[in-house]
Order: sequence, then C-alpha cells, then structure tokens
Amino acid sequence: MSGSKDLGYARVDLERESRQGLPEIVYGPGKQVNEIAGIVTTLLDRNTGPVLATRVEPGAAADVLASVPGGRYDQAARLLVWRAAEPIGHTVAVVTAGTADGPVAAEAAAVAAALGLTTTLIRDVGVAGLHRVLAATADLRAADSVIVIAGMEGALASVVGGLVETPVIAVPTSTGYGAALEGVTALLAMLTSCAAGITVVNIDSGFGAALAAYRLTRGPR
Amino acid sequence: MSGSKDLGYARVDLERESRQGLPEIVYGPGKQVNEIAGIVTTLLDRNTGPVLATRVEPGAAADVLASVPGGRYDQAARLLVWRAAEPIGHTVAVVTAGTADGPVAAEAAAVAAALGLTTTLIRDVGVAGLHRVLAATADLRAADSVIVIAGMEGALASVVGGLVETPVIAVPTSTGYGAALEGVTALLAMLTSCAAGITVVNIDSGFGAALAAYRLTRGPR
Amino acid sequence: MSGSKDLGYARVDLERESRQGLPEIVYGPGKQVNEIAGIVTTLLDRNTGPVLATRVEPGAAADVLASVPGGRYDQAARLLVWRAAEPIGHTVAVVTAGTADGPVAAEAAAVAAALGLTTTLIRDVGVAGLHRVLAATADLRAADSVIVIAGMEGALASVVGGLVETPVIAVPTSTGYGAALEGVTALLAMLTSCAAGITVVNIDSGFGAALAAYRLTRGPR
Amino acid sequence: MSGSKDLGYARVDLERESRQGLPEIVYGPGKQVNEIAGIVTTLLDRNTGPVLATRVEPGAAADVLASVPGGRYDQAARLLVWRAAEPIGHTVAVVTAGTADGPVAAEAAAVAAALGLTTTLIRDVGVAGLHRVLAATADLRAADSVIVIAGMEGALASVVGGLVETPVIAVPTSTGYGAALEGVTALLAMLTSCAAGITVVNIDSGFGAALAAYRLTRGPR
Amino acid sequence: MSGSKDLGYARVDLERESRQGLPEIVYGPGKQVNEIAGIVTTLLDRNTGPVLATRVEPGAAADVLASVPGGRYDQAARLLVWRAAEPIGHTVAVVTAGTADGPVAAEAAAVAAALGLTTTLIRDVGVAGLHRVLAATADLRAADSVIVIAGMEGALASVVGGLVETPVIAVPTSTGYGAALEGVTALLAMLTSCAAGITVVNIDSGFGAALAAYRLTRGPR
Amino acid sequence: MSGSKDLGYARVDLERESRQGLPEIVYGPGKQVNEIAGIVTTLLDRNTGPVLATRVEPGAAADVLASVPGGRYDQAARLLVWRAAEPIGHTVAVVTAGTADGPVAAEAAAVAAALGLTTTLIRDVGVAGLHRVLAATADLRAADSVIVIAGMEGALASVVGGLVETPVIAVPTSTGYGAALEGVTALLAMLTSCAAGITVVNIDSGFGAALAAYRLTRGPR
Amino acid sequence: MSGSKDLGYARVDLERESRQGLPEIVYGPGKQVNEIAGIVTTLLDRNTGPVLATRVEPGAAADVLASVPGGRYDQAARLLVWRAAEPIGHTVAVVTAGTADGPVAAEAAAVAAALGLTTTLIRDVGVAGLHRVLAATADLRAADSVIVIAGMEGALASVVGGLVETPVIAVPTSTGYGAALEGVTALLAMLTSCAAGITVVNIDSGFGAALAAYRLTRGPR
Amino acid sequence: MSGSKDLGYARVDLERESRQGLPEIVYGPGKQVNEIAGIVTTLLDRNTGPVLATRVEPGAAADVLASVPGGRYDQAARLLVWRAAEPIGHTVAVVTAGTADGPVAAEAAAVAAALGLTTTLIRDVGVAGLHRVLAATADLRAADSVIVIAGMEGALASVVGGLVETPVIAVPTSTGYGAALEGVTALLAMLTSCAAGITVVNIDSGFGAALAAYRLTRGPR
Repeated sequence: MSGSKDLGYARVDLERESRQGLPEIVYGPGKQVNEIAGIVTTLLDRNTGPVLATRVEPGAAADVLASVPGGRYDQAARLLVWRAAEPIGHTVAVVTAGTADGPVAAEAAAVAAALGLTTTLIRDVGVAGLHRVLAATADLRAADSVIVIAGMEGALASVVGGLVETPVIAVPTSTGYGAALEGVTALLAMLTSCAAGITVVNIDSGFGAALAAYRLTRGPR
Repeated sequence: MSGSKDLGYARVDLERESRQGLPEIVYGPGKQVNEIAGIVTTLLDRNTGPVLATRVEPGAAADVLASVPGGRYDQAARLLVWRAAEPIGHTVAVVTAGTADGPVAAEAAAVAAALGLTTTLIRDVGVAGLHRVLAATADLRAADSVIVIAGMEGALASVVGGLVETPVIAVPTSTGYGAALEGVTALLAMLTSCAAGITVVNIDSGFGAALAAYRLTRGPR
Repeated sequence: MSGSKDLGYARVDLERESRQGLPEIVYGPGKQVNEIAGIVTTLLDRNTGPVLATRVEPGAAADVLASVPGGRYDQAARLLVWRAAEPIGHTVAVVTAGTADGPVAAEAAAVAAALGLTTTLIRDVGVAGLHRVLAATADLRAADSVIVIAGMEGALASVVGGLVETPVIAVPTSTGYGAALEGVTALLAMLTSCAAGITVVNIDSGFGAALAAYRLTRGPR
Repeated sequence: MSGSKDLGYARVDLERESRQGLPEIVYGPGKQVNEIAGIVTTLLDRNTGPVLATRVEPGAAADVLASVPGGRYDQAARLLVWRAAEPIGHTVAVVTAGTADGPVAAEAAAVAAALGLTTTLIRDVGVAGLHRVLAATADLRAADSVIVIAGMEGALASVVGGLVETPVIAVPTSTGYGAALEGVTALLAMLTSCAAGITVVNIDSGFGAALAAYRLTRGPR
Repeated sequence: MSGSKDLGYARVDLERESRQGLPEIVYGPGKQVNEIAGIVTTLLDRNTGPVLATRVEPGAAADVLASVPGGRYDQAARLLVWRAAEPIGHTVAVVTAGTADGPVAAEAAAVAAALGLTTTLIRDVGVAGLHRVLAATADLRAADSVIVIAGMEGALASVVGGLVETPVIAVPTSTGYGAALEGVTALLAMLTSCAAGITVVNIDSGFGAALAAYRLTRGPR
Repeated sequence: MSGSKDLGYARVDLERESRQGLPEIVYGPGKQVNEIAGIVTTLLDRNTGPVLATRVEPGAAADVLASVPGGRYDQAARLLVWRAAEPIGHTVAVVTAGTADGPVAAEAAAVAAALGLTTTLIRDVGVAGLHRVLAATADLRAADSVIVIAGMEGALASVVGGLVETPVIAVPTSTGYGAALEGVTALLAMLTSCAAGITVVNIDSGFGAALAAYRLTRGPR
Repeated sequence: MSGSKDLGYARVDLERESRQGLPEIVYGPGKQVNEIAGIVTTLLDRNTGPVLATRVEPGAAADVLASVPGGRYDQAARLLVWRAAEPIGHTVAVVTAGTADGPVAAEAAAVAAALGLTTTLIRDVGVAGLHRVLAATADLRAADSVIVIAGMEGALASVVGGLVETPVIAVPTSTGYGAALEGVTALLAMLTSCAAGITVVNIDSGFGAALAAYRLTRGPR
Repeated sequence: MSGSKDLGYARVDLERESRQGLPEIVYGPGKQVNEIAGIVTTLLDRNTGPVLATRVEPGAAADVLASVPGGRYDQAARLLVWRAAEPIGHTVAVVTAGTADGPVAAEAAAVAAALGLTTTLIRDVGVAGLHRVLAATADLRAADSVIVIAGMEGALASVVGGLVETPVIAVPTSTGYGAALEGVTALLAMLTSCAAGITVVNIDSGFGAALAAYRLTRGPR
C-alpha cells in the first residue's frame, strides 16, 4: 500500500507530512514499548519534521528513549518528542481555571512547543475570583491565539472569549464530581458559550487543542 | 380530612399558611378557569395572606379575574395575585444574562414582589461583555440576596457568585439551542459552579427562585 | 452603566467593537421587530463596522428593513446586514455533506461574507460517495480555512480534516432522525474525530462557525 | 497580578476575604501535601478568617498539620481547619435520610461549624418510616435553616421542605445503585420537588451546602 | 395461524383469554375507527370477558360506539368498554400527588373497574402537605392494593410505600417541566424508593398499573 | 467534478450504480418538488437501474409524478419508484410486532420490492402472544433473510433471532411512550439481544433495512 | 423520638413490624460489623419476626454471626438471616435468562424464603432458545407469582408476562456490556414490555423483588 | 426439559445446532473453569459442530484445555475452540480504523475462522489518512462481506460502506476518551451512517459481528 508502511501492529501514514505539514503523531495508550519505538523509528526515517508520542507513562517512556535515541520526555505532559520544531512565530496563551486542570495544560503547552509554537502559561484564573483573569487581560490579548482549559462549569471560556478577539480554543476537563459528569458539563457549556466564535475540542484533549493551534499557522497551497 | 378541603378537582391545603407562613400557591397549567377560581376563592376565604396563581395565560386570567374580584394580572409574568403582601424589608436583585431570559425574570420578580420582597431588576449583563456585570457590582452587593437567571452555558451565575457574599439562587433557562439541551446544560453548569455556595432551582423556575428568596426572610419558631 | 446602553428591553454592548473588532451581533429569536430595530439603530449609531441580525424570519425582516434603512436581507441565511465589511483577504471554504445541511451553510457563508471573508461553497460531498470530496481537494486546500457542515454521523469532518492542513471548524447539524438525536450524534462524532486539530461549534450554528473563522483574521494587540 | 499570589502550582485569591467575607477554601484532591501546605500558609498570612482544606485523606492531613501548625483534622469530614470562626448565631439543622449519607453530612456539619454556624445533626430519618422525620419536626423548625441530605430517590427533601418555612438546601448523594445513577436521580428529584422554594447543590457536596448556609448569614454592603 | 385471527390491519390474539383470563386489550393510538371497531367485534365474538380500547379520543370513540353497540365511553379515561366485569372482591386505592395527575388516575381507575376491581380514589395528597396523605392512611390501609400516581419527584410513592404493607404499584407521570424530564425523574425516583417492595410501571401508564392490579387477583393453575 | 453532477441544489452521485450496483436513492424530506424531480430526472438519464425517492408526502408525490412520468407512488410506504427492478431471487420476510409498526414495514417492503427482492409480510406477532410468532416459524425459516420491526421493548428481534439461522436485520421503531424514549429503548434492546448475530439499523429506518437486505444479494468483484 | 431507637450510627425504625408486618431490613454496604450487629440486636430485641441483613460480604458476615448468635449466612445471596419465617403458603417462581443473572436470583430467592415464601428456581431459560422457557410453562403457571430476572435486552420478562396471568415482577440486571448500559437497557425494556401488567424494580434488586412478592401475601387491615 | 440439559449452574441448549446450524457458544465472563469445562463437554457430546468459548482469560483457558482436550486457545482473541469448522467458501474482510481496535478485530476474525469463514485482515486504515483505505479498495471489494471495526467517531464504516456493495457489519469500539463515551458515540454514528444499508452490532462485539457474518452463509429450509 503506497504512502503507508505496515509494521504488522500498525500501518504508519507516511504521507501525512507532505499532506499536512506534520508527521503522524503516536497515541501511546494500548501500544507496547516496542510498538511505540518501531513507529517512531519509521516516522523519523521517513519524515523530516518533529515526531511525538503522547500519553506515555514514565516507565514506558524511559524504555522507548533507550531504544530510540535523541528524544526527550516531558513527564507533566506525558509527552515524548524527537526533533522538536524551531519557533515559527506564533504565540499561544494557555490559560487554566484551576490547579486540577494542570495536566491537560501541560500536554497542550508541550505539544504546541514541540510543533514550534511559543507558549505562555496563565494558570489558575477561574471566574470565582474574576480579578485574576482580568489582571491577565493584556497577556491574553498579546497572544496570537488562546487555549482555555477548564472543568466543572467551564465558565472561563466564555469570559476569555469576551476579552480577546483572536481564536479561542476551549478544552473541557474532567475536573469536578457529581453533576460535572466527567467533563460533559464543561463540554456542553463551552459549546453553548455566549461569547461568539469560540471553538471546542474533546474533553481533556490538550493534544487536540495544540494541534488546532498549530493549524492556525498553516496556510493554503 | 382535616386541614384540607376537597373541591372534587383539587384538595386544597388549608394548613400551609400556618405551617409555612404562606397560603398554597396555585399552579395554573392543566387547570380549568373554574377550577382556578374555585381554589383561589377557597384560599382567600380560609387564609389571610397573599394568594397567587402562576403560569396563567391572558385569556384564562381575564376569566378568573372576572369570577374572583380583587385580583391583578401581570402578563409578562403570567401571574395572578390577590392581596399582595406589604414590603417586608428584604431586597432581592434579579439579574439576567440575556433578553431571552426576560419571561423567567418577570415571573421571579412578580412572585417575589407579591410576597413582600423588594426587587431590583438588572437585565442583560451576560459575561461575553463582562464590563456590564462589573458595572452592576454595587447594585448586586446592595441587595440582601441575588437571583441569577441565565440560559446557554449559564456562566453568569459563577461570575455573580464570586462578586457577592449574600445568598445566590441560580435559575437555568431553556434559552439556546442544540447543545443547550433545553436548559439542562445551564442547570449542570450552575450545579458545578466554581463559585462556592451557589444554590440552584429547576429550569425556567422563576417561581421556585422567588419562593427560595422568600424563605430567606423566614425564621425559626 | 458605561460602555453599554440600556434600551429597557436590552442592554447593548457598546464596547464590543473596540474590544473585539466587531459590533455586537443581534440574535433574532424572541425579539420583537421594534426591539431588533432599536438595537440595530443603536449599534449603527455607536459603531462603524458591520451590523448583523441573525435568524430573522422573512416577515419580521421586511418590517425591520422598513424601519432601519440601508440593510439587506438574505432569506436562505435568515440574515439582516447593514454596512457589510469590505473583503479582508481571507478565504473560507464552506463544505456540506448533504442537501439538508444547506440552511446552516447559508448562514455560515452569509455571516462570513458580511464580516469581510471570501467564501467558497462546496456542496453535497458526503463520504458515501467519496470521489466527490476527493474531487474537491484542491479547492479545499486553496482556502485559508474550512467550515465543514454535516449531520447524521458527521464523518465528512474527519475526512476533510485529513485532507487539509489549515484550520477546520466543524458544525454538526440536526439533519437525520432516530439515533441522530437532533444533532448530538454528529456533535459527539466531530469531537472525537481521528483527524487531529479539528474544532467544533454548537449544533446548527453556522453563525458560530463564521465567527470562529472571523477570529482567524484577528491578531494580537 | 494584584489581589492574588502565584505560588507556581496555584494562584491564591487574596481578595476573597475582603470581597466575600471568607478566605478562599482549598479543595484537596489532586494537590500534593506541600502544595496544600503552601496555599494554607499563604492564606493564613494574608487573611484573618478561618482557613479550610476539604477532602483531605488522613495520611496527607497528618503531613499538612505537621507542616502548618495550629490546625485540626476531622476525619469523618476529611476536613482540615485553622482558626475556626466563633459562633455567629445561626443554627443550621443537618438532616440525613440514611446511614450511608453520613460522610456527606459530616462534611456539611464540619465546614459549617468551622465558619461559625451552630449545627444540629438529625440522622437517619428517611421517609419509609415517616414517624421518624415527623418526630423531628420541632427540631427542624427551631433551626434558622436546614440542610437535607439524601440519596436514592431523595424524597426527604420534599417532606422537610413542606414542614419548615426557613431556607432548605438539598444535597443529593450518590447513595444507592442501579437507577440511582450515582446521585443523578436524587439530584433531579430534588430539583423537581413539589415543596416550593427548595434549592439544590451538587451531588455529595456537603461543602457546597455549608457554604450556601454561610451565605445566609451575610448581608448587603 | 391458529389461536389468532388476521384482519389484514391486525392479528387478533384469540387465546389471550384462555391463557391469561382476559381478552386482548386494544391500544387506540394509530388505529382507524374501522380498525378499532373490527378488532373489538372480533374480540367480542370470540371471547366472553370484558373488551376494552384505551386512549381513544372522543370523536373516534363516538364513531366506534355507533359501529359496535353495547359499549360505554369514559371521556376522562379515554376508555371504551364493552361487557364490563362484575366486581371480583379486590379493592385498589388509586392515589395521586396533584391535580395534573388526574388523567392517568382516571385511566387506571376506569380500566381497573372494567376488569372487576373496586376502586377508591384519593386525590391530590402530595407530600408538600404531608397531613393530607397521613389523613388518608386508614383508607390506604383498607385497600387490598394501592396504585400511586405522581409526577415531578414522585416522592408520594415512597411515603405511601412506608404506610401500607400491601402491594404498591407506582406510576410516574410526565407532570412537571425542566428537570422533570417528561416523567423520567419520577420514574427513576420510584425505582430507587427507600420504601422496600414498591414496583413501577411505565410513565403515564394508568393502564399498566390497572393490569398489574388485576394480576393480583389471579392465581395459579 | 467528474462522477457527479452539480444541479445547484444537489450534487448527484453518478458513479454509485457502477460502484455499488444501484443508483443513488433520493431522501425526500427538506427537498422541494422541483428538486426531487430534477435529481430523479438526472438519475434516470445517467443510470439504467431503479430510481427511488423515499419519505415523500402524497401531495408532493403527485407533483413529482406529473413532472417525471413513468413512476409509481406507494402511499403507505411514502415511496416513489421509477424502473422497479425485476425479481432477483431473494426472499426477505418482513415481520412486525404490532399494528403501529406498519408504516416502517411498508417502507421496508416497498423499497425491497423495488430493488428486486421478493417480500413476505408477517404482521402483528408480538411476543406477548407467543403462539403467533411460533405459528409463523415455517414462513420465517423459508425466507433467505428476515427484517424484524418492533418498538417498545423490541423483544421480537431476540425471539426471531433464535428461531432462524439466516441473516436477521432488526429495525427499532419509535412506537410506544414514556420509557420507550422515541425508539431508543428498542434500539438498545436489539443491540444487546441474547440471540447471536442479529444486526441493527437506525430507528424507524425501513429504508436502511431494505438496503441491508439488498446488500445480501451482492457479491464480490 | 418514639417509635425509633437512635444508636448513634443509625436510627432503627421500631414501628416497621407493627406498621408493615416485617421488621426493618438492614442494608449492609457502608456499615461496619459492629454497626450491623448493633442494629440486628436491636431489631431482634424489639420485634418478633425475621431479621435480615443484605449484601454482606463473607468476612463481615462471619464476624456479625460471631457477635449475634442464632443467625445463618447464605453466601450466594450474601444474606444474613435470624428467625426465618415459617412458610406462609405462597409460591414464587424465580426465573432467570442466563447464568450471569444467578447472584441476583440467589438474593431474591433467599430473601423470599426467609420471609416465608416458597420458591421455585427456573434457571437459564433465555429467549434465544425459546423451547427452554416454553418447557417451563407449567411450572411458571403453578406459582402464585413470578420474579423474572434478566439482563442484556431483558426480553424474557415479556415472554413470561405473556405466558402467566399471575403477578410478574421483573428485575433488570447489569449483565452484558456496551449498549447494555449497566442494566439500564433491560430496565427500559421491561418498563415498555408489550406484555401488560408487568411491574419492575431497580436494577440488580433481587431484594426489592422479594419484598414486592412478600407484599402480595399481605392484606388490608 | 427436552432439548436442553440442566447442569445445575447452566441449562445447555441442545437444539441450537439443529435449529440454527451451530451449537450454542459459551460466554466466558462470570463462569468458573469447571462450569466452562462442563458446558463445553456437554456441547461436544451432544453436537457435531464447532464448540467455542469466548472472552476467556489465559489462566482459565489453560485450565479448561487441561480438562477438555482437543481444544485450541487464541490469546489475542481470548477464544477457546474445539472442532473448528472446515472452510465453507465465504470470505469476510475484517478492517480496523486503528491499532486500539485490534483486540475486537482479533475476536471477530478468530470466531469467524472457527465457524468456517475465510478472513482477510486490513488493519489501521482510519479515515484521517484516506489513501490507506482507498489503497485497500480492491481487497475490500474482493470479499463476500466486510466487518468494519472502529472507535472514536467511527467514520470508517461510512467510507467503507460507500466503497463496497456487499454486506457491511459495523462494530463500534470503546476506543477513545471523553466524548467517545465508551463507544456510544461510534455506535450512534454507525447507526446514522450516510452510507445506506450498513448494519451495526453491540459495542466491542467482535463476536456478534462474526456471527452475523456466519448467518450470511446460511440459507432457508
């Protein structure tokens, strides 16, 4: 099958870089160390851009790094990176509502950075103490785009959406309990935000938000 | 059955006033004009306080008023009132996120007023234009309690909850479409608000919020 | 309240243009003709940019236009526009899966055009006949961004997301019946797309997608 | 950022006490011992009122107490308290339907007490044996407010709501199995209670109920 | 096909009476007048017991009665009956929470009566005024079984279940709005009742409850 | 775009017949008479096989037939057919649980017949009177495949699935009320059938079942 | 509080036996061994009938039995019983669809037996092999009532409901995966059964079914 | 009970082979090793065709094989097989969207093979890299039927459904997180596929798909 390589345990998309400017990114869960290593090796061989593996636990990460040299592991983000991209001149502000949203923010920021985006982290500015997010307004407006990460009722997305005019990518998180419904409440709330033009990605998907931010830097051909 | 009167079509709770300081309130939908009139007449006869009928459409309201004199109809609130209470010295601010929340606010304010509360209406201060609600901060803080009415993602409840220290009663509304799920999204969002100590009533229940505010004025015995 | 004007039936956000580069946009449902006219007049007076009212039915639209001259009505989009913006050099491709997605596409395209975006409409290229969307690949790649509009299982978003590298904004529609659950199925499917970096707006929200595309053209300050 | 202190792992809201009469309360889950200790220390330094950390497990609690002296741990409530408030003259009755609702009641009562409320615990009076709650009527009516805690079908909230005229804050719990849906059934039931003016907080949120009761003691400014 | 008769538009179960002591009962919705008449005629011819058609609107009922003589129509119950059974010595108490539950109670009572049960109607004794249901305790205990009909939070089922020791059949109704979810909340609440041994039938199914009560009178063979 | 024809209001898939042995089928809802006529005309011109339009109401159907001669309308099935296929030697039994499932069965049978399948209709054999479906066993086993159509609890699918060894396609219908949840209950029940190897299509999709049966007659190439 | 005894950890309902013919039954989960022992001791002292504790794990059961002599433990049913009732002349058939429904059947049968019912167990007669349940018809009809226990699609309840004329109590179980939704599918299916007069209890509630069967033996007073 | 054998822990359906061409298949979860062994032994004794036990973990599998000789265990599929069938001349293509769908594909392929189908595995051809599935078109079209296995948004089913004309059996998997809702999103998406005539089985049910494919090979009698 041209354009892909069948490793037995996975069929690697070799055309992704030429088609979308970025090699395929490896999703770690459910894959063995040798499978991650094999896919990464193939991607490094057949592409020139950054190669990433997401949601890899520390133990597995160490084993993969031992097998495929040249990589780096970000534990907070659970991210493996080889050949991180040079900065491409787009700044994304990553803003969170609370401490518990930290891991998702770490993934979003680390993936974005590995793809060449410059990231600014604005942490723990939930709307219950509105002065915190208002104090961050200048920083938010200085960015080319904003990733808003919040669980529970996700109201931060609406507030930020009303403060900036640039693209806002909202990430609902599974933070909270009871009626938070594992992130579904924040997801629904962000989709129905009264701040026009906000877009939303899947629950806890720091990865998805980073990729959406990366797309902002790509143009037509 | 002592303590109640069986009218055939309804069993009127005659003890409610002595038990809870307020006669039973008539819920209009599904009742005929003569049934509303009959229950209201019984309540007026056997109690001394205000008598209300909620969610009554204009045509039916006119017929009931013709049959039971001394009442007044508030069309925006769809509320019939006899013997409205004197002001009892508690101010409740009724604040809405958008124009579409108006009918629920009208019901909340009219019921509250009929029970003796003083109401302040702060309209259309959704969080997409945050300066509007911030400009209303002093008014919000001047009230004894606040009823926040919002649909869509309901973020206004969290913002107001963070601005005042008095009781906040949140009313989700069925405003919005798609992922707003007929008010369920606002309901879930308000229940998981990051602003601590907010309480919530049923979707579109301006009535429930007004009664909750009324309870704030009642003490132990 | 500075920065807004209280018309009694609505509090108009006068700062939105300076804050976000665009005057507030009027949401038609639930508003009377005179209310829409009043808000529009205020917005025209106090801003310099385009003024829009969405989801206005034909009869009401004619009455508003008679009252506020200089506007134009797009019936397919149910959109009223005054002072449409000049083209600002960003092309957005609006692509639909089926004929029934047409009204949402019309809203997306008309709003985008009124805000100065150039739109390309690629209609009826659902994945059951894959050659149709493949034949449109060049057109899709030539755009600065893509709005994908689909109901039922919403698979078109994943396919388009894999073909282009620019921003993809997915709009689930309420097209379909039974397990389509009024658009919820397409919404969930788009949020879990295997094509990385796709973002999603509310069900049937052509308006939200257009605003998200407009944000793509705005930069930091 | 004025009004808050950024500890790296958290941005502490320093204005909450002046704004709402109470320092920020620390939510334990997902925070390390040193993080809880750091936030608590900051809050103690920069405020004068009670400082609380909720949902802290025994082991972590001991470590935090060792690091930040002067605190006290209530294991049943999983609550850490420093500088508990003096009684402020408001009695709240905490009433439960069954034994399994005990932990939520413990949290509600301990948080309320730490904030200066006087609490009365009325335990295990579910409506299947109605004489139990009826026997408690005088105690319920003697309180300034009532927190009703129940899982399964949550009927106790409606019964209590009909017995007292003071504020009733209902807490659904995740007690039960099958159709109890982890507390969602009790939540929905309490929101649709036939006893007017009941308000509801999130599932299992003894904390939220206590804060709502605390708000009852705060006035306008 | 032995044991049934194919009328073209329906296959009538002729064995039901010998198998279950009762002829098949006709469900009206979706059937034409001539179809109802045809099925009823067949059932009358081939059985000896009562023949019923449920949920028939007044106009259609009149036409069916004109076509199949000997029947009687109960408009409140929307029920057509031919050859109503003689009393068989089982009393069922039909108890409702509110006025809006009346139509479901009417169906339950009329179907039960047509099958030979003696019915007692106890109306409008919702738990918000507990003295009403307590006053009815003797009547409830005097019955052989109880059908409890309630919407909203359905708490009456738990209270009644705790007062009597005989079979309790709970019918949730679609009364209420918002979080009542068209009767789903009452359904879930009744299924998780803290009163042991309550059983539940479908939302608004007065018919189902009556048939369940009828089964109580049938013995082994 | 090769392989399709853009009519402005629709892009007709001209390759479907060569790719899948059958021209595209027109879904009526949301299309104007002239649009249906235009698409049908194009399909008739550019294909040789049967051309169908589904879910067309009688008035629109008459207008389309007047505009595109040679067609035939089946009102019970709401189906328009041109160039119905010759029988291809596959018999499908269409079996329903109740009278209310009739319209879905009519669509399934009429579409299947138009595509060349021979259909046997076995009506109204719900499992409450099990002898009816048992009496039909021989007919069910004589067919090459079976379409089972049932609403409410959909149990007929499991029973039929246990009686025959040929392909069983289950169609849940929106028949029923309350907990039937507009067909979702039957859908879920059929998907979890204890009879192995049953497959399921969308709620009320007689069309989908007929197409699935048609696929049974197609082989590899 | 008269009629109950407050043990500190629980308030025991001492009137249940006189009110409902049966002492309160202890629900094991969430209670300590000493709490179960204390409640059981109180119930044995203050009543004369059978005392049961349900869902007690083997280890805890042994400890309770050591502390409160005279009891017996049924491990399959996870049930502790003291003073089991003499047979009272009512036979209940407990019928299951599959092997996995066994534990729920064990609880139903053991609780029923402890309360004096005679039980017949008919196991593993799911409708995929219909001859199994048909072969059991005589046994089913010989019982005074039937408890049907099934997971997945729960179709057995409808089939049994059509075979017997006595009371049928359906218990949905959490058997199955995916679309079985932890028993919700079986629950919904049983509630919408086409067999009239079936009643339903909570998911996996063998206990609830047994109590419902016990109520069948109780008469008016 | 004729036609079945009661082993105490299970009632084995002995007529299934004569009725449906295949002995009953044993579902492993919840059964003890000796129970699986006992059922398998009975099935081997009383039938002549293949005997399978699904979802058996490695340890249990080894114990069963030791007890019932002649079997074979496929660990990836968690399947035990005795007397696998000879090839019967029907090829089914098993196609997956991603690596994580592998275990479900393994079960589908192993069960199908044990029943005599010839299987082709086409792995990891998700639609984000469309060229992969397009490159497999010839292989897909060469099969007699196709099983499509996908999680997340399940779009592969629609794409494959549009490429082949033979039967397509779609299996949603629980792959993904957040809005994937444990496979419910893929399930709903496949049920509403725009590719006509696709059928769907339960989430993660490779077994169900294989049995559905097997039914394709059976004819009328």
